Amino acid sequence: MSHHPPFAVAVDLAIFTIRDGALSVLLVERGEEPFAGQWALPGGFVEPDEDAEQAAWRELHEETGVERFPGYLEQLRTYSAPDRDPRMRVVSVAHVALAPDLPEPTAGTDAADARWWVVDDLLSPADGAAEEAPELAFDHRQILLDARERVRSKLEYTTLATEFVAEPFTLPELRRVYTAVWGTPPDLGNFRRKVLGTEGFVIPTDAHGSPTGAGGRRALLYRRGPAKIVSPPMARG
Amino acid sequence: MSHHPPFAVAVDLAIFTIRDGALSVLLVERGEEPFAGQWALPGGFVEPDEDAEQAAWRELHEETGVERFPGYLEQLRTYSAPDRDPRMRVVSVAHVALAPDLPEPTAGTDAADARWWVVDDLLSPADGAAEEAPELAFDHRQILLDARERVRSKLEYTTLATEFVAEPFTLPELRRVYTAVWGTPPDLGNFRRKVLGTEGFVIPTDAHGSPTGAGGRRALLYRRGPAKIVSPPMARG
Repeated sequence: MSHHPPFAVAVDLAIFTIRDGALSVLLVERGEEPFAGQWALPGGFVEPDEDAEQAAWRELHEETGVERFPGYLEQLRTYSAPDRDPRMRVVSVAHVALAPDLPEPTAGTDAADARWWVVDDLLSPADGAAEEAPELAFDHRQILLDARERVRSKLEYTTLATEFVAEPFTLPELRRVYTAVWGTPPDLGNFRRKVLGTEGFVIPTDAHGSPTGAGGRRALLYRRGPAKIVSPPMARG
Repeated sequence: MSHHPPFAVAVDLAIFTIRDGALSVLLVERGEEPFAGQWALPGGFVEPDEDAEQAAWRELHEETGVERFPGYLEQLRTYSAPDRDPRMRVVSVAHVALAPDLPEPTAGTDAADARWWVVDDLLSPADGAAEEAPELAFDHRQILLDARERVRSKLEYTTLATEFVAEPFTLPELRRVYTAVWGTPPDLGNFRRKVLGTEGFVIPTDAHGSPTGAGGRRALLYRRGPAKIVSPPMARG
């Protein structure tokens, strides 16, 4: 092995859930340098006996405080700019995770605080927003941008949206996932055609949800089906 | 930084081109341990002053022997199993590259030999194949499987196929790219509808190619257009 500069390898996690109708991401306030006091995506170093995916699952449980993470995880991409960490060369294998109904987090050992943030407030803060959006540590703003785009794009051609809702769910609940992630509601007819016309996207139950709307109709409840791909894809709203 | 086990970070490259109508990949015969004498994807360690993408471009030029690689490069995913390299923890940021008409390679400094292989011969060798398909070093068979699937899938919903043909090209030439990558020809009508119906997929020139077929018709020549996405996607053959 002629030469191989030493690196540290970390995982960082963009953990998404939908809270109060908004796509939200878990951030931790860093308790240690560098970037102490700044907000960052949760993550940590890959241990000697684990691969990046195992490290991501481990961090996912530690950071969300849930014993068995009830959702979805995939590798996003690897970030490796030479100056991305002031300490040494650290490459980060970034992951995207998502789940319904995640609880309020508790700060881990090396974090001062942890909380959910509305993604759009972080990435494109509106004038007069209720609170100032923080700068993110490291290159985590870019990772978060890429992670949001990955999820937005996967909602077009996969059934991933169902991972954002707890079972059983109604179609209006599922449609609100698209509205939250895309920032605009999908066309109702197109949405229904894709969800009900893709075999195995959702599976009807015998039960109905609570009455909603003026007419007091009770929407049918569904479970996730085995289908993964929507082809041709849904049009992004 | 409490603990951060030392890693080496490498890039590996699945470099594809189409030769004699077959999707082909560049492999090098390793001149050094581990896996000396075995065939592997080309690659190397990331240098202290470069990121993974810069390392991939550098290796791409070194391994193909061309001064300016005339094609496309993207990150595939990162492979990080603890035992994937017997020497130490090495994570590989794998990339996919492709270009038309790449020349016969010359072996680099640490390679005994380098040559193009038909991808299907490596991944699913037919009974009675002309030569025995080699086992690939490290986890490179898995990387090659994932890289082929990435390219196959991108040909459905992007215009990436045009990166496999030199400009100007005829539609039959472009269609042969799909046939080579998918292993089966795309439906002719669907192919023409997508390529000619997606604005900016291809741009017609005023010129015609050589006469082909029994009727001796000369097909119109095209250039690559600015479009990247085909929506809805082409049906995989």
